[in-house]
Amino acid sequence: MLDPVSWQLKSGEIIRSAQGLLDDLDGDLRLIDQTLLPEKLEYLITSDIEIIYDAIKQLKVRGAPAIGCSAGLGLAAHCRKFSGDNVKDFLAEVKRAADYLAESRPTAVNLFWALKRCLNKLAECNANSVAEYKDVLTYEALAILEQDINLCKSIGEHGVSLLKPGMGVLTHCNAGALATGDYGTALSPVYCAKEQNIPVTVYSDETRPLLQGSRLTAWELNHAGVDVVTICDNMAAQVMKEGKIDIVIVGTDRVAANGDVANKIGTYGVAILAAWHKIPFYVATPYSTIDLELEHGGLIPIEQRDPQEIRCGFGKVTAPEDIGFYNPAFDVTPNELVTGFITDRGIITPPFKEKIAELVNNGGK
Amino acid sequence: MLDPVSWQLKSGEIIRSAQGLLDDLDGDLRLIDQTLLPEKLEYLITSDIEIIYDAIKQLKVRGAPAIGCSAGLGLAAHCRKFSGDNVKDFLAEVKRAADYLAESRPTAVNLFWALKRCLNKLAECNANSVAEYKDVLTYEALAILEQDINLCKSIGEHGVSLLKPGMGVLTHCNAGALATGDYGTALSPVYCAKEQNIPVTVYSDETRPLLQGSRLTAWELNHAGVDVVTICDNMAAQVMKEGKIDIVIVGTDRVAANGDVANKIGTYGVAILAAWHKIPFYVATPYSTIDLELEHGGLIPIEQRDPQEIRCGFGKVTAPEDIGFYNPAFDVTPNELVTGFITDRGIITPPFKEKIAELVNNGGK
Repeated sequence: MLDPVSWQLKSGEIIRSAQGLLDDLDGDLRLIDQTLLPEKLEYLITSDIEIIYDAIKQLKVRGAPAIGCSAGLGLAAHCRKFSGDNVKDFLAEVKRAADYLAESRPTAVNLFWALKRCLNKLAECNANSVAEYKDVLTYEALAILEQDINLCKSIGEHGVSLLKPGMGVLTHCNAGALATGDYGTALSPVYCAKEQNIPVTVYSDETRPLLQGSRLTAWELNHAGVDVVTICDNMAAQVMKEGKIDIVIVGTDRVAANGDVANKIGTYGVAILAAWHKIPFYVATPYSTIDLELEHGGLIPIEQRDPQEIRCGFGKVTAPEDIGFYNPAFDVTPNELVTGFITDRGIITPPFKEKIAELVNNGGK
Repeated sequence: MLDPVSWQLKSGEIIRSAQGLLDDLDGDLRLIDQTLLPEKLEYLITSDIEIIYDAIKQLKVRGAPAIGCSAGLGLAAHCRKFSGDNVKDFLAEVKRAADYLAESRPTAVNLFWALKRCLNKLAECNANSVAEYKDVLTYEALAILEQDINLCKSIGEHGVSLLKPGMGVLTHCNAGALATGDYGTALSPVYCAKEQNIPVTVYSDETRPLLQGSRLTAWELNHAGVDVVTICDNMAAQVMKEGKIDIVIVGTDRVAANGDVANKIGTYGVAILAAWHKIPFYVATPYSTIDLELEHGGLIPIEQRDPQEIRCGFGKVTAPEDIGFYNPAFDVTPNELVTGFITDRGIITPPFKEKIAELVNNGGK
């Protein structure tokens, strides 16, 4: 029933995103505190459920897949410290802790999904002791992590075929190792290129208002030894014009059945600039982010975020208080601007509608 | 010889940019300290030449025309305080003060131009006393200011014909009253619309890295009662897609003979996005900014600025230190992306080459 492979896979290995359990199966959850980047690399190492709750709430860990992994591993780290041997009490504590963690970020689908997956596993496993239940929970959490890493790595293995030595890759926001179990989505082809000694330079849009590009993408690529150049968002057109960009690769929050792409605000503009300069524009995504129920991207309401992110995002007031602000969280790039999707099941190019359905339903085979 | 019209024109009137001499002809130079915006509106009121030097050097006043106006008025304010009655001593002091001010910003062409214009006027005026020389200097400085205001106002009077009630106007950087004697270039049509009770909404790109759009453009429009919405640079495509923008108006540092436009970094990208969304893209400029000697924009070398502007512009480190940065000061928008030029001599549309030459050489008549 218990599969030690998941844990063995990661034992002693420091993954880029640092989501993992330390030392041994009784170790703590380990996370990079992303709120301190790029100034300080500090690991949060804990099994305290309140600190884990806070880490998710305060965005010390962010990125949908990374939140899912951390929630599962955090739940396991906490519950392994349970000291009694009454199975019923243990399962009640797991439930209590899972419910508590689920409230840390009420809009994070991966958070609920991971916690529910852990609870379901416990419900169906028929273990006989607290010790066995602890192992079931731990291996399930590690399996979530492992699955995400493999998904991301597959994206990279397909995507690396698009990269040649010396290429310039432009990306927007952070769809990297920090946002996932490891490798990331948009950055996975770059990490695979690094592993295969294919040198590329990544141009990272700083990505206002929250600067995930300069704070996180630039940091993690640099940390991994990948050549990275940070630009302000409004410089993308100029670096394209100068011939510095050979390919754009971005991640996505949601792909519609027709190939329309919801992603961080600014992605749509980058896609237009790429089209204008005849630069291929790719979207990296696990197949599971494609929503066949969503006919097209126009059906997604654009969420408005707090104006204060624009007005005084970095400790300094940079705009008057009593003016209007417009702060959409994301935009939708129409499918005609997308050259292709780099998925864990392969790369697909237009026409998207049929190929996307085939990919999701039949694995693209 | 002395023409009191210039001064009377401004007497008692507070212009938006607040470049002026206060109270009476013996008053101090008055400037808005732009480094304190948008948090504090504070006037620098002084005739101390070292404080004026510092104001130009520290960018308390910025924008090429505004620097020219301030240098002339600052020189006059300082020299009016001269206490002797020896003409030779007075002229030596004017020369010394002008040479000193000229060193405050070694790349500011308007600075040298304004100071030289004042010195030339004194050299040719044949006045008979220190008092007379003081007046000549003062009126020449006021004439520089008045000329700039009139130039800007003419741009607005032509440009306002493009604006209809309810329109959305997108602008980039600050080409407003704060950068000129008053009215600005890109913002002049908006101020003229305000005077004519034509309500428009201005979308102001924040304009990374130095945020002139959110700090200055949003502030001055709001201060003048114009409806303004600040967006991050990467949101321009989305507001265009949503139909919020009817026209783009930007300023320029230099226009080539063929109509290529050098302006703040990001302008080229905005021009592409406007073309993509079929939104007219206008460049507001006095005819004097058109350089007929410059065949096309490709001949302008793109200056790189300090990476620290990107890395820690908000008072907080937002990108790692040991990565690459690319920080071009401006970009060049090719003439085919320009719908028209709004000049003090009228609006011109393609084909530009002949019309631009005609405009510059013959006033466009």
